[in-house]
Amino acid sequence: MKIAVLGVGLIGGSIGMAARRRLDAEVAGYDPDPAVSDKALELGAIGEASVSVPEAVDGAELVFCAAPVAALPGLVAEALDATGEGTVVTDVGSTKRLLLGEFSSQPRFVGGHPLAGAETAGVANAHAELFEGARWYLTPTAKTEGILYDRLQRAIGDFGARPQAIEAEDHDRLMATVSHLPHVLANVLVSQAAEELRGESERLPEVGPSFRDTTRVAGANPPIWADIFATNSDAVAAEIDGVIERLQEAAKLLRDGDNDALEAWHQDAGESRRELIEAASTGGELRELRIRVPNRPGIVAELALALGNAAVNIEDMALYPAADMRSGAISVWVAGREEAERAAALVRDLGHDASIVE
Amino acid sequence: MKIAVLGVGLIGGSIGMAARRRLDAEVAGYDPDPAVSDKALELGAIGEASVSVPEAVDGAELVFCAAPVAALPGLVAEALDATGEGTVVTDVGSTKRLLLGEFSSQPRFVGGHPLAGAETAGVANAHAELFEGARWYLTPTAKTEGILYDRLQRAIGDFGARPQAIEAEDHDRLMATVSHLPHVLANVLVSQAAEELRGESERLPEVGPSFRDTTRVAGANPPIWADIFATNSDAVAAEIDGVIERLQEAAKLLRDGDNDALEAWHQDAGESRRELIEAASTGGELRELRIRVPNRPGIVAELALALGNAAVNIEDMALYPAADMRSGAISVWVAGREEAERAAALVRDLGHDASIVE
Repeated sequence: MKIAVLGVGLIGGSIGMAARRRLDAEVAGYDPDPAVSDKALELGAIGEASVSVPEAVDGAELVFCAAPVAALPGLVAEALDATGEGTVVTDVGSTKRLLLGEFSSQPRFVGGHPLAGAETAGVANAHAELFEGARWYLTPTAKTEGILYDRLQRAIGDFGARPQAIEAEDHDRLMATVSHLPHVLANVLVSQAAEELRGESERLPEVGPSFRDTTRVAGANPPIWADIFATNSDAVAAEIDGVIERLQEAAKLLRDGDNDALEAWHQDAGESRRELIEAASTGGELRELRIRVPNRPGIVAELALALGNAAVNIEDMALYPAADMRSGAISVWVAGREEAERAAALVRDLGHDASIVE
Repeated sequence: MKIAVLGVGLIGGSIGMAARRRLDAEVAGYDPDPAVSDKALELGAIGEASVSVPEAVDGAELVFCAAPVAALPGLVAEALDATGEGTVVTDVGSTKRLLLGEFSSQPRFVGGHPLAGAETAGVANAHAELFEGARWYLTPTAKTEGILYDRLQRAIGDFGARPQAIEAEDHDRLMATVSHLPHVLANVLVSQAAEELRGESERLPEVGPSFRDTTRVAGANPPIWADIFATNSDAVAAEIDGVIERLQEAAKLLRDGDNDALEAWHQDAGESRRELIEAASTGGELRELRIRVPNRPGIVAELALALGNAAVNIEDMALYPAADMRSGAISVWVAGREEAERAAALVRDLGHDASIVE
């Protein structure tokens, strides 16, 4: 089987590696930047660096378009034009409706979106296992040719991913909720704080751990995010409308001064979060272990080693340095109460205070 | 000098320990729960467990009220009633205006708020160094007796903290911005996602790292937070109003479809965050190092050890497990570009991909 990858960055390169290793496929890659395709060739992400889209897709049964969202419509059109009946063309963009709007009547195009790799970029970070266990959304339409869809889905499964069909509309709404909206809120929070605090430079307060966590994704990768927002603008704007309504309710709750209602609202939020995060975890209910520690170099290592040696896996971690940066607390999340208790005992053996957050 | 601590949890117990160790003070403690004061006595947080407020404050020059926010007005009044001219009474509550509203004409009361200890609770976690380097806000008024304020400020400085006078109003607005508001946004985000996704249980998506970070503080410690919100409700509500306005602008930006404006908005947010976080850091501009790693037990240890052995201190850290929980990325933040490059080299020597986020 020949596979073509158009755009050989992190995702495209990883698709190439997975296809070569797991499907023993012949992989041709094209990238508008020849230095990138040379690098991909050197890393073994592709078996052949093509100089044009038609050359890359010639004879391919499967074509992956792995370009930035804004470049996809042109690239998909070019790939479809350059191929015939036996070739299925797909993409890996973070939003799906705009593309589907253009190609929904094309039986050979199936939109796709693997939930992997958001945290790095570039072919240098590509690897064959990137998609292992990852959800990979596919957006077939009524016009999609069954046999081509099946071929695509099988290849994705062979990469180790979990393909799932979804309407483009539902996909974009889901992503707006769990990914795009958090970025918007982080941006807004940070902008508001910066503006308010600039006037108070003499007492710019130490921003605490809650502010750090809540705003960590603010302003990540502007060009890519501008594209994502732009191609999902109505769904993200609708999410924002929903948040505005909830914020108005929260402001009312605060101004009404009903303490019990406030506490119930706050408690509900905590339960909702556990429910959502656990859905993403593999080993059961996540438990938080809080550990008070000196913030010296090596302390994270000491803790993680103790847990690692006992085969306790850390699912999530947050550091809360104290103001002097010489002491602080570390929260680690592990799967299940029993694991949390083992972890607490191990940490206490090292002489640190540890408590499981109830 | 005799110091009284009313309420001997994490903060009260740590005040007692700091006063005994650093001021060589005689410390009497009172807690409404006798088991707690017994524990505090056993841990050396106090030198004497009193059975009532009057007994504890008898002869004390300095009285710290370290009860939950809602209990403070009654406790401060009782402490003032039971003491005379030579005694200064202070508190450690997270909000200041309500209390000042009641006691602003009292020359012997000075409101206080140490920014420390938010991440744990209970006298078992108390320690004498909790306040080392921490900002400790004080809210003197025009009526405050100078000599008493000076005594309080000196004691706090001796605990290792950095006392700073601030108007109660300014304090509560600052806290609303950098602490209370992030909690509100986390709650709202998680509630909205939970409601929307409950209807889609068959495809509950893996919530990604952005969602995790942004919502980490959602629903933390409901009774304490209900009190904080209730006693700072108008400032928090005003912050919410500000966020609503910004969200309306963001929604408009999205619906207008001006890609350049979106990108500029996103970029501004990233710059604002760096500015705010750096103000809290000691060693210069924070740089983010992204590392791709297998998610096996011990991997955090391996990285942290390599950095720790080279005396690179980790200021902040976030784990981004991939969907299979067997691989993923870790971001560590270190102070300064040079340190980041050293860290990157160390990590690469271990055979991992590492890149400094530009």
